[in-house]
Amino acid sequence: MHTLHLYNSFSKKKETFQPIHPPYVNMYVCGPTVYGPAHLGHARSAITFDILFRHLQHSKYQVKYIRNITDVGHLENETEEDKIAQAAKKYSQEPMALAQHFTNSYRKDMQDLNILPPTIEPQASGHITEQIAIVQNIIKKGYGYVKNGSVYFDLQKYHQNFHYGTLSGRILEDLWEATRSLNHQKEKKNAHDFALWKKASEKHIMRWPSPWSEGYPGWHLECTAMSKKYFGSHFDIHGGGMDLLFPHHECEIAQAMCTEQQNPAKYWIHHNMITVKKQKMGKSLQNFITIQDLLQQHTLHPMAIRMFILQAHYRNPLNFSLPALQAAQKAYYKLYNGYQYLQANQVTTPTYNSNSYTQTLKKKIKNIEEKCTYAINDDLNTPKVIACLFDLLKIIHDLQKRMIDWQSLDQDTRICLYNTYTHFFKKILGLYEEEYKEKNTQYMMSILLPCYIEAKKNNNYDLIDHIRKALQKQNIRLKDLKNTVDWHYVMLNDKI
Amino acid sequence: MHTLHLYNSFSKKKETFQPIHPPYVNMYVCGPTVYGPAHLGHARSAITFDILFRHLQHSKYQVKYIRNITDVGHLENETEEDKIAQAAKKYSQEPMALAQHFTNSYRKDMQDLNILPPTIEPQASGHITEQIAIVQNIIKKGYGYVKNGSVYFDLQKYHQNFHYGTLSGRILEDLWEATRSLNHQKEKKNAHDFALWKKASEKHIMRWPSPWSEGYPGWHLECTAMSKKYFGSHFDIHGGGMDLLFPHHECEIAQAMCTEQQNPAKYWIHHNMITVKKQKMGKSLQNFITIQDLLQQHTLHPMAIRMFILQAHYRNPLNFSLPALQAAQKAYYKLYNGYQYLQANQVTTPTYNSNSYTQTLKKKIKNIEEKCTYAINDDLNTPKVIACLFDLLKIIHDLQKRMIDWQSLDQDTRICLYNTYTHFFKKILGLYEEEYKEKNTQYMMSILLPCYIEAKKNNNYDLIDHIRKALQKQNIRLKDLKNTVDWHYVMLNDKI
Repeated sequence: MHTLHLYNSFSKKKETFQPIHPPYVNMYVCGPTVYGPAHLGHARSAITFDILFRHLQHSKYQVKYIRNITDVGHLENETEEDKIAQAAKKYSQEPMALAQHFTNSYRKDMQDLNILPPTIEPQASGHITEQIAIVQNIIKKGYGYVKNGSVYFDLQKYHQNFHYGTLSGRILEDLWEATRSLNHQKEKKNAHDFALWKKASEKHIMRWPSPWSEGYPGWHLECTAMSKKYFGSHFDIHGGGMDLLFPHHECEIAQAMCTEQQNPAKYWIHHNMITVKKQKMGKSLQNFITIQDLLQQHTLHPMAIRMFILQAHYRNPLNFSLPALQAAQKAYYKLYNGYQYLQANQVTTPTYNSNSYTQTLKKKIKNIEEKCTYAINDDLNTPKVIACLFDLLKIIHDLQKRMIDWQSLDQDTRICLYNTYTHFFKKILGLYEEEYKEKNTQYMMSILLPCYIEAKKNNNYDLIDHIRKALQKQNIRLKDLKNTVDWHYVMLNDKI
Repeated sequence: MHTLHLYNSFSKKKETFQPIHPPYVNMYVCGPTVYGPAHLGHARSAITFDILFRHLQHSKYQVKYIRNITDVGHLENETEEDKIAQAAKKYSQEPMALAQHFTNSYRKDMQDLNILPPTIEPQASGHITEQIAIVQNIIKKGYGYVKNGSVYFDLQKYHQNFHYGTLSGRILEDLWEATRSLNHQKEKKNAHDFALWKKASEKHIMRWPSPWSEGYPGWHLECTAMSKKYFGSHFDIHGGGMDLLFPHHECEIAQAMCTEQQNPAKYWIHHNMITVKKQKMGKSLQNFITIQDLLQQHTLHPMAIRMFILQAHYRNPLNFSLPALQAAQKAYYKLYNGYQYLQANQVTTPTYNSNSYTQTLKKKIKNIEEKCTYAINDDLNTPKVIACLFDLLKIIHDLQKRMIDWQSLDQDTRICLYNTYTHFFKKILGLYEEEYKEKNTQYMMSILLPCYIEAKKNNNYDLIDHIRKALQKQNIRLKDLKNTVDWHYVMLNDKI
């Protein structure tokens, strides 16, 4: 596939990606509700759309990428209490201080995971005016009703004129059937009507004036308001986790249909969940592991998390296990070593040597390049891209084993090998640790290697051991070659 | 001074700091207008209030610290055009994408400079509802008038009932006298009336509905709205640069007086400016140097910037020069080496040796500790604190010179030396590079030193030179001692 194809959850088909107004692409992704530290599930969402963002940018699109911060209005299913307000109570914190704290820690996590910052990162609480305007519009169109200062979306009315369930395929009648009326829902005409505006109780700190009451907006409203504000009523991509497909995105569609007469997004993209013993990893289930715990307690390399997530296709469930993450780290180190080899050898002059071996290699490399492009365009098939990188790595190893200088390949092939590897490893998959840390390691190794060679020359085994052991702590292993010493990352057994 | 004293710009006196509701302290500081990269002037503001934030926290106060992000409403003096909108036009960017970009880069700068994140970092555009409510209130009280969809604050009316100029000492009548009426101000009754709400022109992207027009709030309004929202109508500290004293803070006081009948802040704290050839460094004057330019092009250590700023008292002007910053880096390295010495030696067992030398030292150290505490409590006299740290450093050097183990001091004195140095150097002045980088350097040195010793033993001068030269690049110098090798930071001449 020479152009991008994406699975559209709306049409339930893989479609050729054609932006509404090329070369511009507008992409909206549901960000975190900032009431606790981010876990592996958040990482999957952010990484999935980071890949799409990177690939679109490298496909010469001008991408405006919005990922919001939900700091108000996300209600607990059971109690219908605002999640931020609830957590604030628990920590005896002011809601906005708590939201700021977890927004900061989320940003730190994103930075650690090498996730590009979105173009705009708007907060729900920063768009109250816009949300109120939409509620007013919904009421005006006849799809919202006011009850005791709160406003609800009238699903029955909506369903008469539109169709509720176009995205999720859920059947409203069945939903009604299955639901018993809950106490706290007594204001609603029907159990599945959802809040557009909630009147705040007296103790509720997060509150804003509105035509109906001092209160706060309903959760589904914020994405409708913010995407409309920055993109208008129709945009290219709406992304999120499969857990948001219903009811969150279904409700967004309802809100947009009755006010703007159209499905807000052309492509609906949903990633699958991280699971733990077949259950979704999530804060509500208390079965989550935070990103910082993985990095600090389990001393995982941040790129191990990226690798773990990218080794699965984004639409497949991915089961969490520490050994799997450690294996991903091993895989990352292997690919990194290949990258480092190409980096170190890219500048030397070509001495092309055409023979049957290099001719075959040439074809192989070109072929893998095509496969990589095909895979990423094929609904972001990152596991396939990674497999291709390992195929390239095999070629590198083979060159090393046969003691063949890769310079003996012709220039085109060398450039193709180098560019394909670098482009997919670093730029698309983003499997590259922060520049600063990387430079630091290379700097340190540039001082250390001559010391190590000297120690060897003098048969100073104590010093040799000292250097080797110290480097092991950073997963670096030295390799004695004929005239020199090489270094690379390994996953040492004592760390697994 | 055993308790904090702060110079209050409102009373024009140094006052004992007594919070309104101890142990809680509410501090509001005017943050950046995010339409360009942050420069040294922004660093001074952030560092000044970072010191106050740190010192208050270490004085056992529970501090809620708000530093806002101005992403709308800050108008150019001349054209009365919104600064963000203007910059967005220049870069052909959407205003909110531009604001996000420079908010992100500001946060990166703050992180580099080791500035603690504020408790809440609210955005002006996120508080439109609150700002509209205040405008409504001002109109209701009779101090605002509507003209062509814009709302202005009626200074003449205000001045009749209150007094305009209580903070700045400016006399309104003189201001009127001096001002010629400008064309774009023709909607105003008087030239110094300021905008509370501006009607947006047709092309203006940043706009919100209001009772008066689709438009945007005036600059002075945001701080009144956000401080009131998170602190209520009276709070402890309001901070900012002296350039904000008039008219920004004066207008904030006017807005609060006529709606809440009180001066919003108990203590008004203003830091002085960074100057370049006696002119204020600022974006409008185009005479600024960005923080990232200092760090990257001029390869300054981030802590050199902190040191440079803290070597002057915050209420004195500070003239920018590169040599002064480089000298500050030298000073930082000296203090850092002292810190490192204490860190390295803190754990060894005491072998107290009481003699007249140690007795005198004991008194000296206790005395310096008191001076440090006095200095920081004396309106944050950081140059004095730094001088004290150098006095402690002199003691450390003297111990080293006399080959006296500092363990020969009695435990109390040692603890006092260690704690005073650490507390002020690291915790209060925050002169401590990011943990990660620090650990990395120490780790590298732990591998390298034995290699260096080996090279010396073998008289391998090439290797000795190689190691020394490589370390020089990081401003690290090795020092050959009798039985071992020591390392410390130096400012090398070839870098100045």
